[in-house]
Amino acid sequence: MTVDLEVICVGNELLIGKVLNTNAYWLGKQATNLGVNVKRITVVQDIVEEVSNVIREVTERKPQFIITTGGLGPTFDDKTLQGVAKAFDRKLEVNEKALAMVKARYVEYAKKRNMPQSELTPAQVKMATLPEKTEPIANPVGTAPGVRVDSNGTVLFALPGVPSEMEAIFTQTIAPLLREAVGDRVFCEKSMFLEDIMESQLAPLIDKAMIANKEVYIKSHPMGAENKPHIEIHLTVAAKEEEKPMKMLAKAMNQLAVLVEENGGKASFEK
Amino acid sequence: MTVDLEVICVGNELLIGKVLNTNAYWLGKQATNLGVNVKRITVVQDIVEEVSNVIREVTERKPQFIITTGGLGPTFDDKTLQGVAKAFDRKLEVNEKALAMVKARYVEYAKKRNMPQSELTPAQVKMATLPEKTEPIANPVGTAPGVRVDSNGTVLFALPGVPSEMEAIFTQTIAPLLREAVGDRVFCEKSMFLEDIMESQLAPLIDKAMIANKEVYIKSHPMGAENKPHIEIHLTVAAKEEEKPMKMLAKAMNQLAVLVEENGGKASFEK
Repeated sequence: MTVDLEVICVGNELLIGKVLNTNAYWLGKQATNLGVNVKRITVVQDIVEEVSNVIREVTERKPQFIITTGGLGPTFDDKTLQGVAKAFDRKLEVNEKALAMVKARYVEYAKKRNMPQSELTPAQVKMATLPEKTEPIANPVGTAPGVRVDSNGTVLFALPGVPSEMEAIFTQTIAPLLREAVGDRVFCEKSMFLEDIMESQLAPLIDKAMIANKEVYIKSHPMGAENKPHIEIHLTVAAKEEEKPMKMLAKAMNQLAVLVEENGGKASFEK
Repeated sequence: MTVDLEVICVGNELLIGKVLNTNAYWLGKQATNLGVNVKRITVVQDIVEEVSNVIREVTERKPQFIITTGGLGPTFDDKTLQGVAKAFDRKLEVNEKALAMVKARYVEYAKKRNMPQSELTPAQVKMATLPEKTEPIANPVGTAPGVRVDSNGTVLFALPGVPSEMEAIFTQTIAPLLREAVGDRVFCEKSMFLEDIMESQLAPLIDKAMIANKEVYIKSHPMGAENKPHIEIHLTVAAKEEEKPMKMLAKAMNQLAVLVEENGGKASFEK
């Protein structure tokens, strides 16, 4: 069974071209390598209405998993949990488990800097204010906990936007759950490189190779200038280990290489 | 009036973490600098149904502009125009203007390589097969033309995914249209950097500075490790030139710096 994931990235900085969306890239790679089918990535502004709208739209498509990044911090522009609460029609409330996580971080921080400890500020309490009936997830490298929401067969994880925090929570808590959901399917990929053939000459050859190798997805990525064609062919397959996915890729690659050479091109394989 | 743009990126490679989505980043930056409000970026798989669904969803939100990237090439996995045709309920047909563009490229290519010219292949004709009632856009650096679709107050531009081609078409044909639609609004941004203050201490100070500077959007980006806080403050404004947007930013920055220093932090400005 295919396990679908949609990623929602919250943050104006990703829309205005201030920050390159490496979080979506990293999550896409990790989840794909676990055998998950990454269906969509949506990037939205720091507006509660936008966040709740996109979460509603995504949940209607019923992926097994949703991961959001960004908007969990203490400042006013961190609006993801308001959006989650609105999307699932749940109240926001101080979550005692999350509050203990935030407090432990603060105590540690104050101790290291020899600062007197004071009461938690409203901004710190904000990071522990979650939609009701959700589960905080420990953040091994930062203050804001992640959040898990279960609704109607979909599990949503809200993660911070700071890459080190997002990656740590994903690796520690989410990756094992995805692996379990996927079961024994694995994802494999290989690239080969073609010279002296135009993408338009290549198109029918890829069609042939795909018809002969139905499990394998073959995509061409033109890389050189138009007058010196250089094309990367990227082959992917998601299958059970016992179906020998690497052999499937090798067979498709070899067949395509023969077709390309019959048509005057040159094929080389990555090491 | 705000001019809204949504970006749709078509391509499995962007979802599986093979290719970092620099196209969305580049378009976001360019459009924002022209004063456009980039509302959303959506990344979808190379599946006709997915492409048509997302285009329908986006057009229902009625942005003035939509830009799609990817999926215009000659191979079977290039499905964007099928998705556009389906979304707008238009037939696909060979577009004579687009065919002349593809042919001119091919003739030039064959001449440079001293190849005999043959008839255009089906894969080449595919690049000139557009939804009816659309306009091909010259591609100054590649074969596949861009496509302009006007529907119901929204203008959709379908651009190739190869960055050099996407950028060339945007700069030559789309940027002038966006600039005209935006009129005399400009976008300005500035950064400042803070030390020795936690994001949670900072939150109420940003609130104060934003209340005193309603036009300016202030966003904090934590950059250091948690025990050595280092925060970038990014201030943006979109306003008419005569409203002196750079002065608005300077005023907000100075006020925030004073607040930060009153609270034991240090502020520095970018040069």
